Amino acid sequence: MPDSPPLTLQPPSAELSAKIANTIRFLAADGVQKANSGHPGLPMGSSEIATVLMTRFLRIDPKDDKWLNRDRFVLSAGHASMLLYSMLYFQGFLTLDDLKNFRQLGSRTPGHPEYGDTPGVEATTGPLGAGFAMAAGMALGERMLAEMYNTPKFDVVDHYVYVLMGDGCHMEGVTNEAASLAGHLKLGRLIAIYDDNEISIEGDTGLAFTENVNQRYEALGWHVQDIDGHDCEAIARAIGNAQAETSRPSLIVAHTTIGKGAPHKQGTHGVHGEPLGADEIAAAKAAMGWPSEDFHVPQEVRDYFDVRRGEWMAIRNEWNDLFAAYEKKHRSTARDLLRVVSGELPKQWKKACPEFAAGKAIATRVSGGEIMNRFGEAIPELVGGSADLAPSTKTEIKTGQYPDYVAPGAFLGRNIHYGVREHAMGWMTDGLALHGGFIPYCATFMVFHDYMRPTVRLAALMRRRAIFVYTHDSIYVGEDGPTHQPIEQLASLRLTPRVQVWRPCDANEAIYAWQSAIERKDGPTCLAMTRQNLMTLDRGKYAPARDALKGMYVLDSEGGKSAEILVIATGSEVHLALAVADALREQGRGVRVVSAPCLEVFKRQADGYRKKVFPKRLKKRLVMEAGVVQGWEGILGESGIFIGMEDFGHSGPASMVAERCGFTVPAILGKISLAGW
Amino acid sequence: MPDSPPLTLQPPSAELSAKIANTIRFLAADGVQKANSGHPGLPMGSSEIATVLMTRFLRIDPKDDKWLNRDRFVLSAGHASMLLYSMLYFQGFLTLDDLKNFRQLGSRTPGHPEYGDTPGVEATTGPLGAGFAMAAGMALGERMLAEMYNTPKFDVVDHYVYVLMGDGCHMEGVTNEAASLAGHLKLGRLIAIYDDNEISIEGDTGLAFTENVNQRYEALGWHVQDIDGHDCEAIARAIGNAQAETSRPSLIVAHTTIGKGAPHKQGTHGVHGEPLGADEIAAAKAAMGWPSEDFHVPQEVRDYFDVRRGEWMAIRNEWNDLFAAYEKKHRSTARDLLRVVSGELPKQWKKACPEFAAGKAIATRVSGGEIMNRFGEAIPELVGGSADLAPSTKTEIKTGQYPDYVAPGAFLGRNIHYGVREHAMGWMTDGLALHGGFIPYCATFMVFHDYMRPTVRLAALMRRRAIFVYTHDSIYVGEDGPTHQPIEQLASLRLTPRVQVWRPCDANEAIYAWQSAIERKDGPTCLAMTRQNLMTLDRGKYAPARDALKGMYVLDSEGGKSAEILVIATGSEVHLALAVADALREQGRGVRVVSAPCLEVFKRQADGYRKKVFPKRLKKRLVMEAGVVQGWEGILGESGIFIGMEDFGHSGPASMVAERCGFTVPAILGKISLAGW
Repeated sequence: MPDSPPLTLQPPSAELSAKIANTIRFLAADGVQKANSGHPGLPMGSSEIATVLMTRFLRIDPKDDKWLNRDRFVLSAGHASMLLYSMLYFQGFLTLDDLKNFRQLGSRTPGHPEYGDTPGVEATTGPLGAGFAMAAGMALGERMLAEMYNTPKFDVVDHYVYVLMGDGCHMEGVTNEAASLAGHLKLGRLIAIYDDNEISIEGDTGLAFTENVNQRYEALGWHVQDIDGHDCEAIARAIGNAQAETSRPSLIVAHTTIGKGAPHKQGTHGVHGEPLGADEIAAAKAAMGWPSEDFHVPQEVRDYFDVRRGEWMAIRNEWNDLFAAYEKKHRSTARDLLRVVSGELPKQWKKACPEFAAGKAIATRVSGGEIMNRFGEAIPELVGGSADLAPSTKTEIKTGQYPDYVAPGAFLGRNIHYGVREHAMGWMTDGLALHGGFIPYCATFMVFHDYMRPTVRLAALMRRRAIFVYTHDSIYVGEDGPTHQPIEQLASLRLTPRVQVWRPCDANEAIYAWQSAIERKDGPTCLAMTRQNLMTLDRGKYAPARDALKGMYVLDSEGGKSAEILVIATGSEVHLALAVADALREQGRGVRVVSAPCLEVFKRQADGYRKKVFPKRLKKRLVMEAGVVQGWEGILGESGIFIGMEDFGHSGPASMVAERCGFTVPAILGKISLAGW
Repeated sequence: MPDSPPLTLQPPSAELSAKIANTIRFLAADGVQKANSGHPGLPMGSSEIATVLMTRFLRIDPKDDKWLNRDRFVLSAGHASMLLYSMLYFQGFLTLDDLKNFRQLGSRTPGHPEYGDTPGVEATTGPLGAGFAMAAGMALGERMLAEMYNTPKFDVVDHYVYVLMGDGCHMEGVTNEAASLAGHLKLGRLIAIYDDNEISIEGDTGLAFTENVNQRYEALGWHVQDIDGHDCEAIARAIGNAQAETSRPSLIVAHTTIGKGAPHKQGTHGVHGEPLGADEIAAAKAAMGWPSEDFHVPQEVRDYFDVRRGEWMAIRNEWNDLFAAYEKKHRSTARDLLRVVSGELPKQWKKACPEFAAGKAIATRVSGGEIMNRFGEAIPELVGGSADLAPSTKTEIKTGQYPDYVAPGAFLGRNIHYGVREHAMGWMTDGLALHGGFIPYCATFMVFHDYMRPTVRLAALMRRRAIFVYTHDSIYVGEDGPTHQPIEQLASLRLTPRVQVWRPCDANEAIYAWQSAIERKDGPTCLAMTRQNLMTLDRGKYAPARDALKGMYVLDSEGGKSAEILVIATGSEVHLALAVADALREQGRGVRVVSAPCLEVFKRQADGYRKKVFPKRLKKRLVMEAGVVQGWEGILGESGIFIGMEDFGHSGPASMVAERCGFTVPAILGKISLAGW
């Protein structure tokens, strides 16, 4: 324990605040200059905001960037990374050398904040709007966790989520989605500070952005304040007011000058995204009476933060005491909370979902919903929602333990009504995963993955466990037609590194798909589920469903070593594959059928296993998937046949659409005969 | 000419209006019931809106659904397609039999409106928000075309764009992007009618959507009215007011009852997306005193629209007279207008851009910008903009002919400031392409294609000519790091049917990429351009750049028939391929280098040509592309080597990132030697 520092924080004097702000300002300018690349404008304009947040509000543990009740600070304007890195330097997570290595290969200070690469970075940001929407997810997570685990006397979860955003964030539509939902849900602990510097890359924001942002946020149910973003007292008052407003999220519109302090360039778009230049930096420092030395940190500022880090430690220790008392009083609740935050699963959870009996036709969206509910009963941290499609995606968790749905101001619940907001839903899912305490899922029709693609990418980049349920996974959607029939989405999901994509062929493969998604700790999983019914296979006749965990497996090896044709399929096409195999066998051909629910998992299997599934001698390979060919060409080799989609689908009853697209036994036999197999 | 019907339209009596509305109502209910699939709720709730639009406002030519000055009506809530089909039946574009074939394979009445499948459908809709944003693009196109071609006495372009939207459209963030830009630009002829029925799929919209939509649109600079959506006079007054308000787009919030008329189900989410059932339809018809017969159209309603179609013809003829006079007075302007609307290019346009001299290093984003400007001078219909990145994407057209940029209320210009709104930019680009009179392009960093993916998909589905310029196309982005470095985007662009993706290797290939994009009439083209400089190749030494038009071509055949290794590359990696080839030749190996700027165009070449580029005997194939392998595996075959990306990139100077990722001659030679080639 440090020598008990004061727990009630005294703000630094006006003079010291200004000095801290200028330190941040010039660390940013120097960092960008040294890297000869980066964005000095926003950090220089937001230095007072960062100063006030750090000196008067932010509650963190400088020794533990994963403390569960830390305040989250998300830099939605990720290009202003030097601002965040300066803050993390003062918090004790980075060194001056780190700041000097800004934007260098392998440094802890990459061009945009990267979760995992830098301690204290709460989210990877850069794509605009993303940080704001992830912060909304974190703020939702904070309240959900609080209502699940706090007890009347013990508010062990009660932190704030701060987010700093720029004009660009506000222009992105996803921000409106997330803000609309945050306002609806009354996320009072979400405090967004808008660095309103009126400059974008093409020039004044007035060229393209003249809406009344304040009025818009009021319409969205937010508490809105307007302040001078360079006035520390005004910033502090505004944040205080925002904290006092507990039933609405807050937007603080901080009017700032971009590149503040750069005498010739401030207030222009010339200062947004390139180094100031040595002359301008020198002039800026001279004008402020600042030493010309690069990366200068005044001794008083160092001293101040030495004390501040002690205060932060004391805050943490105070919470530790609270938690110890809580643990004493609510032993099992406390244990549960620590477990869900750790990311470890409860014991025996896999037993919650026994296999389905064979012979019943059931869509994987439906069996998937049942599986999710069974696992969900064992795993209280499994929470999520749909983009206004729950009755279709079948993704409601109904355990009876809580009210089913989270509601405005009432956060006890497992389900979230995201509304028709796929993109925000994806980011908030990422935000829940980043917050900790949850295994979040979200659901929509597979074709609408296109509306939320960046969110899966970032979950992968950040190696977060998040589950994306995509139902209505092919042309078998039928009547809704080509806008609703995914063709390229399955292949496109498989393109992103670290993503695992499952397309189970029946209810029992769906169990292992869900199991893998829940168990996986190092990245997102996408589950492709059918709209239409699929027969639950008889695992007495075929290989056990458990083999799905290897990614691909020989499902039907009838014919044994005499096999000359290898049929490979995923999801609904596995049933067609089995039918084609039977028809071929009637013709006296030896056929083996491989079910391929997850290509990425299969790639990780040992070489020997992979060769067993795909023996080199079996060149007659027939791949069936109701999607585009990309991703399969390696398996097809030079002589394989692909049964898939070369163009968009059609509106009509599913079976007729399938027939039109060639997904019938006779059509496929015709192709085989045409190939001269 | 018809017998001169009255040109000043008399609205139908209240009684007749109600009858028309009920006809639409029950056509929708019957259509969905017969298809046993579809959405009756919104059409039944919006029947009065459709009635008023058709009987009092919409100006069309019932014989020519491509008349350039027709009013556009876009059904953004595309699931309510039966409403639109009923309207098109009365307009004369569809028959009752078409309505009876709703959602059947090959019918003209697919599940969602499909541009091209149904005369009179202005845009493919279904993905929510898309129709609204495309309508904003059309409204922008109307004004741009008007200011380019109208003359003081001749307003040959002066139509309205009406769009009908639902709650879901408002929840989608892209709608806010488009509305913000439409408000900013003062698109006074955009009139959006919001069917506010307070029901979404999961239940009352209040479950997830409690914002004040009216206030939000006021904040965005819109004129907003609130009306009873079942009161024809109120609807007519509101549309009249919206037309009178010329400097702001209008939102008419029409409060309606979903499924209006269905006695037990109206006003509930049970009526949103499934047939009413025979009993409910019978009860509804009985309650309204409507004949029970399916697809009943009262004789008076038929008679009314017989007259109305005559009025519509008269409107068209009146415009024809105006245009004839305009043509007489402004012969060449009129000819130009007809040409740009026809989609035909001006003569000799290809000569506008001669090839670049060899030996200069220039990024393809920069050469692309020059090429675009040269072609742009010859092709006035080439217009576009960037999502606040024009200084980086280099996509400003500066011909000096007009003011450079379109501005609020002043639409003469070639460039559009889209702001940081990639998704709306994509839809508005599609909207400009749908409107006609333009070859629209838009630009952003390639990684942000992920924010606008649905817009490229729909351009392809609709077979519209639209050009998507994606710069900063690989890890060579450098310092900005993995969030800004595309890895899977190039492969993902290639997945969507009908899209052509070009990745030129130098300034001269960039000419032919642009040429192909401009010339192509049946779909969108994406141009992948580098951030970094690339040497302009010496075409004396290598094959002519014109060969790029074949998609792939042998660039460097030094070694001739003795070649044993085939190196294939795109874009910046072509230069690395040439260096590797040189190094291999120094080792005495025979090497041939193929440049592959467009895989899709190559696939359309004759078999003979394709075999010449990829001779069967050349199995040692080395493919280089700074992206994922998917899409290349067919070319690689079983023994090929791929030099690409298996994981995300890194932040750091581009050359160091490239080295880390293995894009160097020694690293590649190492791999070749490891493979035992």
